[in-house]
Amino acid sequence: MTHYSEIDTPAVLIDLDRAESNLKKAQDAANKAGIALRPHIKTHKLPFFAKKQVELGAVGVTVQKLGEAEVMADAGLTDLLLTFNIIGASKLKRLKALHDRVTIRVVADSPDCVTGLAQAFTNAEHRLGVFVECDTGMGRCGVQSPAAALDLARQIIAAPGLGFAGLMTYPAAGKYREAAQWLADARDVFSSAGVDLPAITTGGTPDIWHMDEAANVATEYRPGTYIYMDRSQVAAGAASLDDCALTVLATVVSRPTETRAIIDAGSKALTSDLLGLVGHGHVLEFPDAKIVGLSEEHGTLDISACASKPDIGDLVRIVPNHCCPVTNLFDQVHLIRDDELLQAMDVAARGKVN
Amino acid sequence: MTHYSEIDTPAVLIDLDRAESNLKKAQDAANKAGIALRPHIKTHKLPFFAKKQVELGAVGVTVQKLGEAEVMADAGLTDLLLTFNIIGASKLKRLKALHDRVTIRVVADSPDCVTGLAQAFTNAEHRLGVFVECDTGMGRCGVQSPAAALDLARQIIAAPGLGFAGLMTYPAAGKYREAAQWLADARDVFSSAGVDLPAITTGGTPDIWHMDEAANVATEYRPGTYIYMDRSQVAAGAASLDDCALTVLATVVSRPTETRAIIDAGSKALTSDLLGLVGHGHVLEFPDAKIVGLSEEHGTLDISACASKPDIGDLVRIVPNHCCPVTNLFDQVHLIRDDELLQAMDVAARGKVN
Repeated sequence: MTHYSEIDTPAVLIDLDRAESNLKKAQDAANKAGIALRPHIKTHKLPFFAKKQVELGAVGVTVQKLGEAEVMADAGLTDLLLTFNIIGASKLKRLKALHDRVTIRVVADSPDCVTGLAQAFTNAEHRLGVFVECDTGMGRCGVQSPAAALDLARQIIAAPGLGFAGLMTYPAAGKYREAAQWLADARDVFSSAGVDLPAITTGGTPDIWHMDEAANVATEYRPGTYIYMDRSQVAAGAASLDDCALTVLATVVSRPTETRAIIDAGSKALTSDLLGLVGHGHVLEFPDAKIVGLSEEHGTLDISACASKPDIGDLVRIVPNHCCPVTNLFDQVHLIRDDELLQAMDVAARGKVN
Repeated sequence: MTHYSEIDTPAVLIDLDRAESNLKKAQDAANKAGIALRPHIKTHKLPFFAKKQVELGAVGVTVQKLGEAEVMADAGLTDLLLTFNIIGASKLKRLKALHDRVTIRVVADSPDCVTGLAQAFTNAEHRLGVFVECDTGMGRCGVQSPAAALDLARQIIAAPGLGFAGLMTYPAAGKYREAAQWLADARDVFSSAGVDLPAITTGGTPDIWHMDEAANVATEYRPGTYIYMDRSQVAAGAASLDDCALTVLATVVSRPTETRAIIDAGSKALTSDLLGLVGHGHVLEFPDAKIVGLSEEHGTLDISACASKPDIGDLVRIVPNHCCPVTNLFDQVHLIRDDELLQAMDVAARGKVN
């Protein structure tokens, strides 16, 4: 048996009990709400957990990149939703190769994007399912109105090799009701036009425990972060610190002053993501410490508020602000149970930039 | 010949003419100032450029992690400075293995750190060179006074297997004069005590063009970012946009509104590093565009100030705020010359977290 304290730092620890509990809790909530769950693998980037999510009842998984889809397809996942506009010949070719071997569907939010898909996919016997992405308040991608969603759906329907799959949105955190209203309006627009709306897929861990409300209009929910949770989800009220399954193990390497400690986890381990928070993570062993600065390889802690202060060589575990990009920085994560190392696992879909 | 526009996005482009020009300009300035150059490889993480730096006249290279040192030693680099406290049995063992095959020196800023090194390195015939790290204003690692530097130097000198190599500092950006004063005071303290000070090594790209002043007290300079330069160095006055050798190639994938464009480069390509800047990078083709938001895979551009606006499918090149962590996010970078692809090169020292 290897205790986590024997792992070289910095390292990512995944508490398997907590991760499994988070997965089960969300699947139970989805089942109760009567909404399909399609977890986003961007958080863990691991076939191991993707398979576990499907075993627990997920209808498939969500990916953001063709490279992630390829890793998941290679690992035996058969039902993928790629929630990103696919633009350009090189990516369309890879999408076609995926479409030939698994069920993969994509999104589009513009006539240009649909035109590209329609030119690449022409087989009416094996259509590519395309969702219309809707901007329900996030201010990122997406058509701007239900009427525009209907127009784009009609373009998809008119393309021989495409199939209209429904509407997709990623709501702004905390704005799930506004998103639901937008989608309900769209449902009315489609209904009035006599256009079938096969599915409505929404997502987001910050509002995951309102899946019952989401289910009033949506048929599918795509949470990502819920498997590990993080400091931003604790701040959003979606999790407690005890739910956080991912921590970054670090060593105190310097104590230059009475009030300063330096750890060997900087932005290359924790990322610079603040997500509106103050400080760069929560130090479990020294909850009164503040991570006030990050260089690439150094984390600077203000420990003036700590009654007992860390010594050089001490190990600390940090709940990062945002767990998803953290797993993208490490070639391996360490699965632990009861503080014992089970396995160092390669992050198979890490660094899939396209 | 492959034009860069044929490379799948997002991708890192390295303009080789610019990188070589940056390397040469700094080496020339160091030669003129009479200061040794020891470039930090954290920026490029490539043996290819490390060797080029040594060929141009660098005395060796700087690394921040044992994993980086191992990659460089494997590639034939023979003189390494590791500017990070090495703490713990596992890392000391790897350091010993490196010390057996190349010249590697390290830093320490505490008696605890020196004690660990002294216990691992005991061979007086093959001593480990140790610099005392000094906090000259950065507020990160380092002893807090010249007197403390002298005390630590004496501990190093007293250890049979260690050799006192000198003083090392990373000055706060723009504070090179304060750092020089600190080091001059330390030189006086060592001189008064009759303790030989073999070398003083300082660094930082923001103040690289003041190497002539640094040379009044320092014997060695360790710049990293200077090879590629970036938006933060342009803001610091150390480079112009025309010096920036690294850009992130991205595709416009969505134009949801008249004033918004979405690109396929988010924080997983550009990082969330702000370094005090507003916005997440400079878009070369649309200099009036502002990168106002990043998700992991999306960059959100406010294009309201752009006279001509980007279309879906357009390629853009972005000068990131901070080039160093960008190369850590990509398995490969693309070397280009006159806009033509020369080679896709694996980032050999990417992801060396420990």
